Amino acid sequence: MDIKDYMQNLGRRAREVSRILARASTADKNRALERAASILEAEGQTLDEANRKDLAAGRNKGLDDALLDRLTLTEARIKAMAEGLCQIASLPDPVGAISDLNYRPSGIQVGRMRVPLGVIGIIYESRPNVTADAAGLCLKSGNAVILRGGSEALHSNQAIARCIHQGLEQAGLPQEAVQVVETTDRSAVSELITQEAYVDVIVPRGGKGLIERISREAKLPVIKHLDGVCHVYIDGRADLDKAVAIAVNAKCQRYGVCNAMETLLVARGIAPKVLPILGEHYRTAEVELRGCSETQGLLPQVKPATEEDWYTEYLAPILAIRVVAGLDEAIEHITHYGSHHTETIVTEDFTQARRFLSEVNSSSVMVNASTRFADGFEYGLGAEIGISTDKLHARGPVGLEGLTSQKWIVFGNGHIRE
Amino acid sequence: MDIKDYMQNLGRRAREVSRILARASTADKNRALERAASILEAEGQTLDEANRKDLAAGRNKGLDDALLDRLTLTEARIKAMAEGLCQIASLPDPVGAISDLNYRPSGIQVGRMRVPLGVIGIIYESRPNVTADAAGLCLKSGNAVILRGGSEALHSNQAIARCIHQGLEQAGLPQEAVQVVETTDRSAVSELITQEAYVDVIVPRGGKGLIERISREAKLPVIKHLDGVCHVYIDGRADLDKAVAIAVNAKCQRYGVCNAMETLLVARGIAPKVLPILGEHYRTAEVELRGCSETQGLLPQVKPATEEDWYTEYLAPILAIRVVAGLDEAIEHITHYGSHHTETIVTEDFTQARRFLSEVNSSSVMVNASTRFADGFEYGLGAEIGISTDKLHARGPVGLEGLTSQKWIVFGNGHIRE
Repeated sequence: MDIKDYMQNLGRRAREVSRILARASTADKNRALERAASILEAEGQTLDEANRKDLAAGRNKGLDDALLDRLTLTEARIKAMAEGLCQIASLPDPVGAISDLNYRPSGIQVGRMRVPLGVIGIIYESRPNVTADAAGLCLKSGNAVILRGGSEALHSNQAIARCIHQGLEQAGLPQEAVQVVETTDRSAVSELITQEAYVDVIVPRGGKGLIERISREAKLPVIKHLDGVCHVYIDGRADLDKAVAIAVNAKCQRYGVCNAMETLLVARGIAPKVLPILGEHYRTAEVELRGCSETQGLLPQVKPATEEDWYTEYLAPILAIRVVAGLDEAIEHITHYGSHHTETIVTEDFTQARRFLSEVNSSSVMVNASTRFADGFEYGLGAEIGISTDKLHARGPVGLEGLTSQKWIVFGNGHIRE
Repeated sequence: MDIKDYMQNLGRRAREVSRILARASTADKNRALERAASILEAEGQTLDEANRKDLAAGRNKGLDDALLDRLTLTEARIKAMAEGLCQIASLPDPVGAISDLNYRPSGIQVGRMRVPLGVIGIIYESRPNVTADAAGLCLKSGNAVILRGGSEALHSNQAIARCIHQGLEQAGLPQEAVQVVETTDRSAVSELITQEAYVDVIVPRGGKGLIERISREAKLPVIKHLDGVCHVYIDGRADLDKAVAIAVNAKCQRYGVCNAMETLLVARGIAPKVLPILGEHYRTAEVELRGCSETQGLLPQVKPATEEDWYTEYLAPILAIRVVAGLDEAIEHITHYGSHHTETIVTEDFTQARRFLSEVNSSSVMVNASTRFADGFEYGLGAEIGISTDKLHARGPVGLEGLTSQKWIVFGNGHIRE
């Protein structure tokens, strides 16, 4: 198979059907999503057979247990995929929404209409459920999608895509709305991320290595984040109970997620009060602590933190702690070491809260709330295709709106420019 | 001079002061703009002297009259620059605006805050007034800017920048907010457009060749448009008077602008009525007509259009005309040959108007209005830094808002995720 030709064909077809999808009715898109959900549940056995093939091949290749677990399609996971599609169907359709339609002194009426981006390329690793999630979000937002999952999940992804194709067909929509790359050749990715004529944006989902490589080589815009080195700053005027609740929740509620706290900053004035309490909590939760010398002075269990620690997203029960003079030093630290993902201040001081909000340059900035809230569902987007730490186009959790653009619309009555 | 070092220094300084600018008060930014405007007017003689140097060098280099004209700073043009800065001062400050701040079921309050992009690189050609316009828009939107004007305008640009620096200084803002590249070495541009660490976005302003080169070589997002092949489609159910007014205004009001009509599409049913009237108008205006065979049958003065004509942005008194079967063929033509800039339909039919609006994929889509309205001032943006035909981030005329991003903000009262 000539990979370049194959990918060009996928791209061309996606571009063609993207015009049909852009004008598809909300009812048709929802029907396709709901039918696909029913079919996914009905086809549990077919999905299971396809998944078994992938699992057997994975075991032969010596994939580790964690990877095999992510690859497994259980009944519960299939149900969750189907529910995800129904939930996307229930979200408002962003396409065609007109906003800010106002008259101008010339007499014309000017507004903006939300429109799909066109064709979206999704590159992801082992979890087959991404196939359904991503397809659903792209379809609802009126985009065609090209899905490139992990080679180890190919049969599962194809089986899921076939269910979605049936849903599309039953709703009278083109099956090419959702295309799965059916080759495991790695050069397919290189082709996809350089198809400027056919693809409008790439969304990579997976490990940092994958995302870095794609960002470096892509000739298309990439919606992404690399690190989630999230900070909690406990201000000198923090409420002690809130500080403890947030600093424990942000670290311990889940370890392997990008919105978990990785570094705790504590104002010098409150450190002797709050750190011993937190130390107890982290000891109970078996969180390894690495800190500056002042932290070490206050908590005997703390190992010295290296320069490297302040940059690190542990994704594990490890936490870096630094005592700072106050807000300025906290913002300096976040600016220098942070990843622009999510930071929170715990304070009762209005002016400090306002300064933190305005001066911290991250995709989510919080006051008196756990960083764990940085999430499309929690923000009310209904679902998310990913999180962006870039400043252009989409920032923070990206839902349906992030998969759309706007065009200007102008209404006149024969108006001409003088 | 080591160009790489020099540009790295500019970039580093811009990044540093961008943090100060991001939190500068509206009052300080406006004061800097207004002071700079006064100083520009007061320093007319200094500007004139600098401009004379550029003009003399330009004449020596054999620049043509059109280029020398664009390069010239007359008293009226200096006044216009100053007025432009005052007008930017009078616009609402986009930075810090909070929208959609709503409570979520979890109890947290989630919204979005508008924030500057950071550092903007502007690359432009001979008109020195861009120095003041671009600096003003970037300053008001809280961004640091690095300006790389044409080498033939260097002394003029430096003199304008000195006035702006005085304005910044008098308002207590850092002069490095506005930096002019003071080398005419071409490699400075290559450095600027690859400084991912220091520059957030590039806005090129100038000819298509410049913009194509920059888009190809940049490692940063570029806000741009290449062509403005704008279409007027006269539908079978068009009002004849409106059709004639719009088709004449869109072509003849100004020729050298990107939102002028370059191709006229006419529905077969109305062509025998409207084309002869339009033919008279274009004959009077001395517009050269190139058309399909049907157009030639209806208007004797029409030369045959080649395939190339449908793709061409003439920027001149030349117009391509094609008779089409109806709306579908018109949309096909625009999709195939268009540049996604601005298209308008003239029709009294509600459903045709709605279809054109939703199915034409351009940055501005109009009904019964001249394409010439596609402009930041006409749309109510107050000013524009450029026009984008891309779908990501900014689309259509780009004003202050297009130079900003949004971050998510979350307010809690000690909220943690369950």
